This record gives sequence, structure tokens and C-alpha cells, in this order.
Amino acid sequence: MNYKQLTPEIIAQLEKVVGADRVVKGEGVNPDYSRDEMPIYGQNLPEVSIDVLTTEEVSEIMKICYANDIPVTTRGAGTGLVGGAVPIYGGVVVCTARMNKILSWDEKQFAVYTQPGVLLQDLKAAAIEKGLMYPPDPGQKLGTIGGNVSTNAGGMRAIKYGTTKDYVRSMTVVMPNGEIMKLGANVAKTSSGYNLCQLITGAEGTLGIITELCMKLIKKPALEISVLAPFKELPTALETVPKIFQASFRPTALEFFERPVLLLSEKFVGKDVWVKEVDGVDVQAYLLLIFDGDSMDEIEPHLERITDFLLEEGAMDVMIADTPNKIKDIWDVRGAFLDAIFESHELFDENDVVVPIYKIAEFVDFFSKDAEKYDFELMYLGHAGDGNLHIFGVSNTMEEEEFKKQIHPWMVAMYDKAKEMGGELTGEHGVGFGKVEYFEEYVGDSIIELHKQIKKVFDPKLLLNPGKVAFRSEWSKLPS
Amino acid sequence: MNYKQLTPEIIAQLEKVVGADRVVKGEGVNPDYSRDEMPIYGQNLPEVSIDVLTTEEVSEIMKICYANDIPVTTRGAGTGLVGGAVPIYGGVVVCTARMNKILSWDEKQFAVYTQPGVLLQDLKAAAIEKGLMYPPDPGQKLGTIGGNVSTNAGGMRAIKYGTTKDYVRSMTVVMPNGEIMKLGANVAKTSSGYNLCQLITGAEGTLGIITELCMKLIKKPALEISVLAPFKELPTALETVPKIFQASFRPTALEFFERPVLLLSEKFVGKDVWVKEVDGVDVQAYLLLIFDGDSMDEIEPHLERITDFLLEEGAMDVMIADTPNKIKDIWDVRGAFLDAIFESHELFDENDVVVPIYKIAEFVDFFSKDAEKYDFELMYLGHAGDGNLHIFGVSNTMEEEEFKKQIHPWMVAMYDKAKEMGGELTGEHGVGFGKVEYFEEYVGDSIIELHKQIKKVFDPKLLLNPGKVAFRSEWSKLPS
Repeated sequence: MNYKQLTPEIIAQLEKVVGADRVVKGEGVNPDYSRDEMPIYGQNLPEVSIDVLTTEEVSEIMKICYANDIPVTTRGAGTGLVGGAVPIYGGVVVCTARMNKILSWDEKQFAVYTQPGVLLQDLKAAAIEKGLMYPPDPGQKLGTIGGNVSTNAGGMRAIKYGTTKDYVRSMTVVMPNGEIMKLGANVAKTSSGYNLCQLITGAEGTLGIITELCMKLIKKPALEISVLAPFKELPTALETVPKIFQASFRPTALEFFERPVLLLSEKFVGKDVWVKEVDGVDVQAYLLLIFDGDSMDEIEPHLERITDFLLEEGAMDVMIADTPNKIKDIWDVRGAFLDAIFESHELFDENDVVVPIYKIAEFVDFFSKDAEKYDFELMYLGHAGDGNLHIFGVSNTMEEEEFKKQIHPWMVAMYDKAKEMGGELTGEHGVGFGKVEYFEEYVGDSIIELHKQIKKVFDPKLLLNPGKVAFRSEWSKLPS
Repeated sequence: MNYKQLTPEIIAQLEKVVGADRVVKGEGVNPDYSRDEMPIYGQNLPEVSIDVLTTEEVSEIMKICYANDIPVTTRGAGTGLVGGAVPIYGGVVVCTARMNKILSWDEKQFAVYTQPGVLLQDLKAAAIEKGLMYPPDPGQKLGTIGGNVSTNAGGMRAIKYGTTKDYVRSMTVVMPNGEIMKLGANVAKTSSGYNLCQLITGAEGTLGIITELCMKLIKKPALEISVLAPFKELPTALETVPKIFQASFRPTALEFFERPVLLLSEKFVGKDVWVKEVDGVDVQAYLLLIFDGDSMDEIEPHLERITDFLLEEGAMDVMIADTPNKIKDIWDVRGAFLDAIFESHELFDENDVVVPIYKIAEFVDFFSKDAEKYDFELMYLGHAGDGNLHIFGVSNTMEEEEFKKQIHPWMVAMYDKAKEMGGELTGEHGVGFGKVEYFEEYVGDSIIELHKQIKKVFDPKLLLNPGKVAFRSEWSKLPS
């Protein structure tokens, strides 16, 4: 790559577009803009950062960068977990966090037009106020909707409601040469050519910069009930998962947890709400389910049936959380799992592979046993209902180099196993920079080559978010 | 395009792959292979047709055609409506209709592995036997699942269940150079690079040849009820549509029809089942709804509520069809609409634009008034719930050239209006050959150029289904 560095002349051009105060240079750049939430993948400050406010600004910035071969990395809130927003090659960071306005509602068609920097939690809350719901529910509510679209974020309600990609109706995208494109339409069906909207979705900012989105919503279900089932052993809990669907239950979410992660998380949030023992026996694992519906009359029969069902399948007990406070207590603990893991460990690395739901137990057994070879500790939890796990290697005692050296073969073994099981490399976090080599290995040369060629169609100078998804960078030297 | 013609040597190579009996040449080629169900877009026989049986055969055929610059058009059952399967440039037609085996069921994960030539009606019936359901429900049940995926077929249940693209989990695709690629995985989530599965879906056979599919299924709802509401006037019926969703009803399907189409269709199937008058007043329009659920207890409250609701909104009556026979009678008539229109007219052309559901009434008014300028007659019906209309110009009296000449400006006016309303050019039929120029005009040069470049990534020699989607052919000369 023959990227150029920013010159005073180029900076002056950028200042002409957005004003001198928003073109932040060198040491002045917010250090957060050098990284996402996985610092182990490396950090790098851009030469310049710009908090953009409009599509037109982004277009003008891209025209300048395109003319001058300046790499550009787009970031939202920087809550990614794969180094996707790290400006590996310096250049310009375009931050969309201040493009945080909800533009308009199309209540008749259950859709919202929004800028990309709106936080997931704000979009969800604003929808609720309108009697609507934005169903995708990634654990990280402080990410932006633009980031969610760019990674096809999944979350906890995917089993009933799908993932982010299922809610993208149309988008405005600034191309690397500055051209503004409108893709898709706010209607429910299309067979109008190649699905470019779905190509940009999940492309991690490598094909264009999303500056506006139209997202589908649904009518807000009138109520939601959570069901918590403690188990004596994780395998029993996991074996129950596919049976729940076979028995025609339609949960909105179906999560599994192990005791150690729960204890860590409760300590982190300072609450003691989840049951830890039943009749003197320690709880080792949990299933947590949500059911939603338009009335208690609609949900109640399911609740009675699921209670009996879970007890028959070996649950030690079944707790129904049907008041806002009870639900909030349980989910506050769930919501804090990742932060709890991050906060309590100096070193961590993770993956988010997906395996068929009836193979989760086998997969957990595989990577747990494999981890015994190494010095790091293991933490994991998962979206049991869709087979998407979050598996962490963590340590407070190892040296970073040694940690990385040990983590690598463990990751490789897990990816190999996931592939053998017919799964996916990443369910919702993306490839970013941290998984480029694993992705290469997982999908093989031909698919990588297709990625590279598609990238060049959109971005012939490879300026947007370089060193990500299918492109190695100089940093991409994993321990061998 | 510098396509070559087949030589005896090339034919001999093809015969080596599949045997001499399956390489059908010249006059021997089934005349059906020259066309789809819209003969007005033209017909052309290929030089050779091959009914393929395996992925490996398709791969070997493509290697030969790639080496020799022979264009290849893939077809399934040929039920398309946009000339998508017409081998404009001759060459080879690869027909997947005999690849009609369901390969295996993954009942634990609600998925089916299938060859592309399985008919939609057979896939649906086989799923039902397993207690499962393949939800997409295009009216044409004799199309293949490969064709459904290639056009992202929509159908009647899109409002509740989405379109074909929402059910594609993974696929095996033969690339133009003969390489066999596996895309996607049979799991519910992925953020693993660009969504190539979604790019092939709806690409109308221009990027690769689908030879195997894994499609998502759902648990079959225990029962399904149809609700038929006659109206005195179409506008009243159409104005009711968005209100149904606002009032929190979740119908599985929501269709609208006008009296003339209904009469034509009943005549065609030889049945008299839909109500034609209420209290001495002629019915002019209908809304037809489906509700499904797991028990009568679950559906009944909705039925009572929708009955009251529709009567309040101006329905002349509300009929509930809750027995298999009643449901079959109603839907047999609905299912025959297109065939009835085809059978009773010598000339027909159509579009399937999508507009926002609350603009359907305005759109119908627009194109109906516009049609008064012309000599052809008008027939239309629509998926009211998702804004996807099927609008036919038909004639038994006009000359074909004059018909085409008059249809063209009417189509242009409709597409312009749909675009102005924020709709899509085609909701479920695709662009094919019949709509290339309209598509160019609708999306503009930049998006067409993106299509062309993406096409070249997959198919550098432009061999697959040439003259379709974003590529004009010599035939693409619409009357001016």
C-alpha cells in the first residue's frame, strides 16, 4: 500500500470543510481513537481525527483523502471487540459519534431514519416511547447503530427476531471517492439487482462510510417475562436447549451461563440476585429465557408449560421474573458479564464462534479440555439459542507475550473445531484486525480473493479501514 | 462480448462429462428452454441444453465453457416473469430441474439441505410432513427453490415471515471458471466477512450457479385461518391496510383484489366461492388475510377482534375460513389469478413494483388513470401488506408492436412514480432481461457501474446469464 501522510496543505483542505477546530491533529487526538475495547490487538493514533456532522462533510473529506491517498478509518463509539476501528495505518479517523440524531419516524411502516452515531440504547429507548421496538439486542448498548450495522451485530434476541442485517432497509453511504449513494428502500421486499445494502452491512467500514440508515422496527410487544433456570451441571442445561425449540417454545432469548462468570458479574455490579444454591446444592449453570407477547393471556400458557418442561429436563428450579424490578435485576447482572471480565483481568482475548445449537455441549467440552494445557484461565457464556458463544482466555499473572503465544494455538484449535462442526468464525463481532489470519484460514484462498476483489470494486485505492477483514497488515504477525 | 459458438470439439468435451444423451443440440432442444413465462420479452434457443445432475457435472461443464468463451444460462422450471432464463446469446442452457432431490433434514436446527431443482410445492409439502414449514410463499408453486433463491422470491407471507433471502443459510455455488465454492453455514448468525450468500441470492444466476442449498425452516404452526373481507370500493379496502398493523394485528398474509380479477380467476378454475354481493350491493374489492398460530386459543381472540375491526373500517362482511376445504376453495382462486390472466389474454406485460403500504391507494389511482390513455386493459392485484403489486397491461385486440409501444411509457410513468414514493423497481420477480433499461434508469449510473464491476469479480468473461440485470444486450431496444 502506498498510503501518503497528511501534509499541512491537505490538513488545510480538511479544515476548510469542517472548520479548524474539528480537525484534531497529532497529540491532540483523543487517545480512545487509537483503539477499541480489545487493546490486546494493538493501538495506533491517527494523524488526524474529525468528528463529522453531516453526509456532505464526509463526502468532502473523502474526496480530499481519495485525491491524496490518505487512509481513513471510520469509528462510532469504539465498542468493537476485534480491533475493527484501530487506524492501523494512521491517516484520518472519521468519528460518526456526533451524528447522533434520530431524523424521522415512519410509524405507518414501522421504520426509523437515523444518523449512524445514535447509540443502540438511545435508539431502543426512543422506539419504546413511540410504542415501537428495535429488536436486535447486542449486550453492548453503548455501541452506535452504524457500528451495529457495520458488524451485523447479533445479540440476545436473534433466535426470535434475527440480527441487525434483518432490520436494514436503506442506507446512505459515502464511497471512498466521496460519491454519495443511496442503497435500498424503506419497503419490505426487493429483487432489484444485487443486494448492495446487505453487502455494506457487516463489511466493517471497508466498502463505504454509512452516514444515514433506515431501520425497520416492530410494534412493541406489550410485555416480556424472563425465566431463570438453575442447573446442577452445564451439560444438562445445554442438552435442554435444542429440546426447547423441538417442543415448540418460541423464546425471544435463550442464554446460558456458568457459575464463575455469574459470581464475577454479581461482584462487579454489587448485587446478589441470582440463585446460587437450591436445597443445599450449588448451582453450576443457568439458562435464562425471555418470552414476549401482547398480553399475559398469550404468554401465561407458555410459562406454565416451560416451567414443567424445564423441571422435567433437570432444572433445579424455575424462577419467573415478571415485574420490571425483578427483570432489571437479573438482566443488569447479565448485561455486566463482559465488563466484569474486562475489569477484573489485565489480559484477555476472546472469540465469538457459532456452532449448531445441539453441538454446544460438545464444543464447550472440547475447548475447556484444550484450555487445560495452558496457563490462562477460561471464561465463557453464550447465546445458547443460536449457538453463538463468547469464549474468553483471561489472565492476571501471565506476561503479555506469553499470553498471546499460548492463546493462539487454543484459538486455532477452536476455529478448526467450529469449522468441522459446520459453524461460523464469528457470529456478531466481525473479523476486524484481530481475526484476519484466522478468517483466511477458515474460509480459504478463493473466498479471501473474492473479498479482495469486491473490496477493490468499492475502494480501488484500499483507503477505507485498511488492514481489516480480508487484508493482512504489517501488524498481522501472529505468534507462530 | 466476444462469445464463441460451440464447435463439435467442445460438444464432444461436454458429452464426455455427462454422456452424449444429455447434451441436446440444435433442433432437439426443448423449446421451453428458449423462454420463461413472459414470451413478450423474446425467445431464443440455446445451441445446446444439458439437464445437469450433480455439482461436479456443473463444475466440469463450466470449465469447458470458460475455456471456450461459451455463454451459459441456468434455468430451473422456467416460471420467471422477466425473461431471466432466456439464453439471449445462445450458448449452453444448464437446466437444474432434474437436481430435484431433498438431500437431508437437520430437524434439530430446523433446516433442510436440498438440490436447487426441487419445486417449491414439493419442498413445502415435504417440510409439512416433518412438522416443519418453509415459510416463503410465492404464488407460483411450480418454480424451483434455486429459482426462488436466485430472484429472492417474496410471496404472500413476507409480512410475517420475510422473503426467500431470510431463509438461505448456506449454498454450494459453481463459479464461472468451474470452481466449487461453499458459502455461509447452517447457523443463525454470522459476521464472518462480506455476506456472499446474500449477494448470490437475488443475483438471477449472473454470479454463479447454485447447485445446493441449506434453507432455514420453522416449526409448522398448528393451524391457519383465512379471513375474507369484501368491500364496496377498493380505496376503502386499501386505506384499511396500514391500520391493521397499527392496531397490532400480525397477519401472516394480507392480500387485496379487485372484482374483475376475481371473476376472471373463478371462471378460470370453474368455481364460484368468493362472495360477489352483500345485501344486494356488488362487492368491488377484497382483502384476504391469513392468521396462524399454535392453537385455536391463541388465534381466536385475534379473529374476534379483526372481525369487529374490519367491519368498523367499512368491510361489507367478514368471512372466516377455518376448515381445510373452505381455505382451499378460497386460495385455489387466489392461486389461479396469474394463470387466469395469462390464459385469457394474448398479450400481457407486467411489473411488480413495491411502494409504501400507505401509498398503495394513491399509486393504484395514479396508474389506473394513466392507463386510460392507452388501448390495453388493466389487471392488478397485490400483496397489500408489503406494498408489492402485480400490475398487468393485457390485450386480446392490439397488435404486438403497438401494445409494446403503448406499454412502455405507462411502465416508465409507474416506475417514476414508485421511485418518487420511495419504493422499489421489483419486489420479487427480479430484473432479468425485461427490465434492464428500467432498472438502469431507476438506480442510476453509479449503482449500475457497481453491479457491472461486482459481476466482473465473479464472472470476468461475462459468461453467466448474459444480458441480464445490469447488462444491456442487443435485444435491449425498447420502443422509444
